[in-house]
Amino acid sequence: MAELQNDRFLRALMREPVDRTPVWIMRQAGRYLPEYREVRARAGGFMDLCSNPELACEVTLQPLRRFRLDAAILFSDILTVPDAMGLGLYFEAGEGPRFERTVRDAASVDALPVPDIDSELRYVTDAVSLIRRELHGEVPLIGFSGSPWTLATYMVEGGSSKDFRHIKAMAYDAPEVLERLLAKTAQAVTAYLNAQVEAGAQALMIFDTWGGALAHHLYPRFSLSFAEQIIDGLIREREGRRIPVVFFTKGGGLWLDRIADCGADALGIDWTLSLSEARRIAGDRVALQGNLDPSTLYAKPEVIREEVARTLEEYGFGSGHVFNLGHGVHPQIPPEHVAAMVDAVHDLSPAWHEQ
Amino acid sequence: MAELQNDRFLRALMREPVDRTPVWIMRQAGRYLPEYREVRARAGGFMDLCSNPELACEVTLQPLRRFRLDAAILFSDILTVPDAMGLGLYFEAGEGPRFERTVRDAASVDALPVPDIDSELRYVTDAVSLIRRELHGEVPLIGFSGSPWTLATYMVEGGSSKDFRHIKAMAYDAPEVLERLLAKTAQAVTAYLNAQVEAGAQALMIFDTWGGALAHHLYPRFSLSFAEQIIDGLIREREGRRIPVVFFTKGGGLWLDRIADCGADALGIDWTLSLSEARRIAGDRVALQGNLDPSTLYAKPEVIREEVARTLEEYGFGSGHVFNLGHGVHPQIPPEHVAAMVDAVHDLSPAWHEQ
Repeated sequence: MAELQNDRFLRALMREPVDRTPVWIMRQAGRYLPEYREVRARAGGFMDLCSNPELACEVTLQPLRRFRLDAAILFSDILTVPDAMGLGLYFEAGEGPRFERTVRDAASVDALPVPDIDSELRYVTDAVSLIRRELHGEVPLIGFSGSPWTLATYMVEGGSSKDFRHIKAMAYDAPEVLERLLAKTAQAVTAYLNAQVEAGAQALMIFDTWGGALAHHLYPRFSLSFAEQIIDGLIREREGRRIPVVFFTKGGGLWLDRIADCGADALGIDWTLSLSEARRIAGDRVALQGNLDPSTLYAKPEVIREEVARTLEEYGFGSGHVFNLGHGVHPQIPPEHVAAMVDAVHDLSPAWHEQ
Repeated sequence: MAELQNDRFLRALMREPVDRTPVWIMRQAGRYLPEYREVRARAGGFMDLCSNPELACEVTLQPLRRFRLDAAILFSDILTVPDAMGLGLYFEAGEGPRFERTVRDAASVDALPVPDIDSELRYVTDAVSLIRRELHGEVPLIGFSGSPWTLATYMVEGGSSKDFRHIKAMAYDAPEVLERLLAKTAQAVTAYLNAQVEAGAQALMIFDTWGGALAHHLYPRFSLSFAEQIIDGLIREREGRRIPVVFFTKGGGLWLDRIADCGADALGIDWTLSLSEARRIAGDRVALQGNLDPSTLYAKPEVIREEVARTLEEYGFGSGHVFNLGHGVHPQIPPEHVAAMVDAVHDLSPAWHEQ
């Protein structure tokens, strides 16, 4: 493997000194880029793109050609694991992801196979290996998965949901059945993330997109504890280097003190909590990644620059901050606005890392 | 006016001693009730129901006939004020509320009329008077409005939104234009709520349903400050009795300490924050209303009862708690499950009010 030329991202996740704040963008390979839309049209459906390692590699690298980013992230979908568990993932135009089969009772939970990553998800690990090779050590490659709770919301509801009625009823009426589903999913996710590391991923991120929909007393039981099980089982060193793990519960700001003990090296933070407050709560337990409101990128470039300045100032002096949005970049954002954000991080962040 | 026979709700909002915790339910007059669906079908469209005082009165009273509730809330829509400002509210099946015209620039903000409540919104104050009369003093009547920020999201976006792209771009690119819109809306809402008090409303609630979508540093400027302007301008005493005000920012748990100084008598709390933590933060500044996850009502009645017990215990001993959901009741909830919740509050809460 080519030697890593830019390790700012990995160093910041370990709170080691850096010359400036590293930056990447959730969904940086996505529909806001015309070159992505071109490849996607060529591929056919969204899953055709995800399951083709060459095309997945191509779109993963696209944003790095445009912007001075400090990390690449595997292009894939969070629902590959439940799909490999036989639920039949498909996408309907304008409807988001759907599953042909749902998992709502003990029998269907117990019937779910733990997927054989090497065969069922080979297209993902092949993409990781290829991307890693094609990066030539330029920046580190992030592998990822959805959290068990977040994956289970789709498995139980059969798709996206506003009220999570089936899974929440299950949480109340049959908590031990839901726990079996989450445990099985956690086992699959652990194997999946470790396979990504073995294929070349240099950092891992776990997206708990829907953890914030849980009631405060259920979040630790049904989301956090299964994320912890995964983190406990991950390969944490490879090629003589730490594999840092980022855990992100969107809408989890109120629970940050508890989440900071989950075993991750860093936590994602959304835009409802200031980084100064998040840093005060997290102390020296974890690094922080975030947290510009993605809608900020609808504003004028001058305003975007001011908001980057504010965000950097909120984190303050020293390492331990990875600049990012507080959630994925929206499809309608002009790429020049993304460039304004990335450039501002390059220009303004060195001042926060001088001795 | 008939003398009020049950003032538990008003007393709890003022943190005065009560014999048990009062309970009402956000959207208690709504689609989960077959008798509501029957009246709505008879009325025609949703706005035909809102704008007919006799029918609005009928559906307001329906849940009181079924459940032992401690308050009635005016049946209306939060978007009556922008509709009266000439934006042309309409409802499309399955699409939620829409406006014919949007407000996205200085010219359209400045062209917006401040509505004449007495004529344009007479149907609302007529409904309030009628409901108050028909209640015969059984329980107090709550009047309500959306917050300026929440109303403005619909006025600027033209309907419901996931990403609030237009109003957030406005907040960044033209903050003073957005402030003019919010100030004008706050003026209209203040007059609207005072007209409801003059027509007989005995408590007021301001719903800031979308405040939690704002970035932490923008919430005080674009939502909270305009709610404060309204609260400052409200009639606070009538018929020799305090008119308590409840302010509810859904998703605002992280900002509770700041919100507790807004001038309201009580704050709505959603299910992401425990009432014990909320009470610790709010101290003796405000009463609290909430906070069962509405999805809890999909569970079995025995489980609902346990969750009510947990919620009461989290608040703990003494007055200052109004039991409610953390958001509106969902349309698919069986009415018997709502009854299980209300009965549990009646059965279990007296123990928390003994000397």
